[in-house]
Amino acid sequence: MAAPTHAVSLAEKFGLFAEPWSPKVVGEFNDLLVKVVKAKGEFVWHRHDDMDEIFLVTKGRLTIQLREHDVVVCPNEFFVVPKGTEHCPTAHEECEVLLFEPAGVVNTGNAAASDLTAPVDPWI
Amino acid sequence: MAAPTHAVSLAEKFGLFAEPWSPKVVGEFNDLLVKVVKAKGEFVWHRHDDMDEIFLVTKGRLTIQLREHDVVVCPNEFFVVPKGTEHCPTAHEECEVLLFEPAGVVNTGNAAASDLTAPVDPWI
Repeated sequence: MAAPTHAVSLAEKFGLFAEPWSPKVVGEFNDLLVKVVKAKGEFVWHRHDDMDEIFLVTKGRLTIQLREHDVVVCPNEFFVVPKGTEHCPTAHEECEVLLFEPAGVVNTGNAAASDLTAPVDPWI
Repeated sequence: MAAPTHAVSLAEKFGLFAEPWSPKVVGEFNDLLVKVVKAKGEFVWHRHDDMDEIFLVTKGRLTIQLREHDVVVCPNEFFVVPKGTEHCPTAHEECEVLLFEPAGVVNTGNAAASDLTAPVDPWI
């Protein structure tokens, strides 16, 4: 694979869409996708049984509700939700988050499909 | 694994060390380590034959020299050096970079061990 000629700007990518809770793919390395997602309001309680999920916040303030406590993630902070752990991300104001996931992850995990279930792995 | 109770602050982690070109582990998810590294001056030409390498800049300006062109990576931008691609990171002013790598990666890749070769996977 030839090296691309430019870096990827997260600000530019976040400017391409508005809808919350709908991760978009902006890069890949090895077997992992780099995704951007906007968070606003409350998502849905769910878990990913086979995957630790990392949330790296670049703008705003993300609250990750866990069953035993909440975790607040501010810009330039990250949090890893261990596999199998129920969680519900929430953001009072819109925030911007970076995810690193293998291909094929459904954003709502084990929760019933709903309006919050986003297309899987769309590139922007 | 129980979920930790707090997010990891990159600013706090970057404040714990000064030396450039010496990646420190600050988290892990699935089979990947989250590392922080400070860049200053010119590193060494090298490649990683088995691993794409992602550079996510959080502060400063990183120039990644490739054999055919240079790529400048500014804050909130990332660049992926494809596996097998020779590269030499350079920073005129100190900059802060996030890496995501499996355990065991030697920072200088295929280059001869030198003063720039850092300890492998120290946690901070």
